[in-house]
Amino acid sequence: MSVPMAGRTIRLIGLDPGLTHTGWGVVESQNDRLRFVASGRVSPPGAGGLADRLDALYRELQGILEAQEPAAAAVEETVVNVNPGSSLKLGHARGVVLLAAAHAGLAVHEYAAKTVKRALVGTGGADKSQVAAMVRRLLPTAGTLSADASDALAVALCHAHHAQTTARLRTRTML
Amino acid sequence: MSVPMAGRTIRLIGLDPGLTHTGWGVVESQNDRLRFVASGRVSPPGAGGLADRLDALYRELQGILEAQEPAAAAVEETVVNVNPGSSLKLGHARGVVLLAAAHAGLAVHEYAAKTVKRALVGTGGADKSQVAAMVRRLLPTAGTLSADASDALAVALCHAHHAQTTARLRTRTML
Repeated sequence: MSVPMAGRTIRLIGLDPGLTHTGWGVVESQNDRLRFVASGRVSPPGAGGLADRLDALYRELQGILEAQEPAAAAVEETVVNVNPGSSLKLGHARGVVLLAAAHAGLAVHEYAAKTVKRALVGTGGADKSQVAAMVRRLLPTAGTLSADASDALAVALCHAHHAQTTARLRTRTML
Repeated sequence: MSVPMAGRTIRLIGLDPGLTHTGWGVVESQNDRLRFVASGRVSPPGAGGLADRLDALYRELQGILEAQEPAAAAVEETVVNVNPGSSLKLGHARGVVLLAAAHAGLAVHEYAAKTVKRALVGTGGADKSQVAAMVRRLLPTAGTLSADASDALAVALCHAHHAQTTARLRTRTML
């Protein structure tokens, strides 16, 4: 017979990269309970060279990661845009976001958009409004969210879901 | 009447970003003379997550920038690939390269591929082999170069050419 273990509280950050706006959202997960911690978005100044804009994004993320102290990061695997120019721009921002998370010592998990939708709504074909509604329902204390922050919280919730499932499977194997 | 000034020696790094190979090349420019300093390429390990690969690229570049101490960086404005997936991957590497240069305190200059070709060969329609031949001719001490290092030196030479032209125009204006 096993005594159920008190689950560890895990603090996760979800990140939704973009050069104009990068959304971020922090949740805490303990057993099956989820708690909203904080969210927002980083909008580097549009003026200045690309290197300076990426540096502004990096530094602001660095501050958020230091303040929030998440144990892991989750980032959506970007749906490749039909426009190669937009993909390149997004790639710049995404590279910087992944790097900032790695520099903060975090394990970085990537999830396909379909996986995020399936984890939250139950189907990979869910639309954005259904995902946003589920984020509001799971995290009622989050208040009004920008689309970027909501998307970031969605991928954080997806990772929390996967981490819980993995932990549960591991516990079962131990029984 | 003006006394011709002894031109400052300027050390420049050219960078040709890629996730598999990032080329780099350092040249020194004094008046109209150019001197090869060093070149190479960074090839982050293919295994591991994307964040770890980008971090390996960043750290290796950081070491090169610390060792070479260039005063400015030049990066080719990437020709957008027809494949959005490749553009996204390239964007990740490019974002990290621009960030590493910004973190080293360098002014980062971007040049369109056509501008690089025009500066080296005289026409924006030059092919890669003509550019490589001109890099070898302008920097005879560079020895055998990988394509990545040669491309990086080409953009460094392009920037040296523009910097020289700008300096000359400024001197003329002062006369």
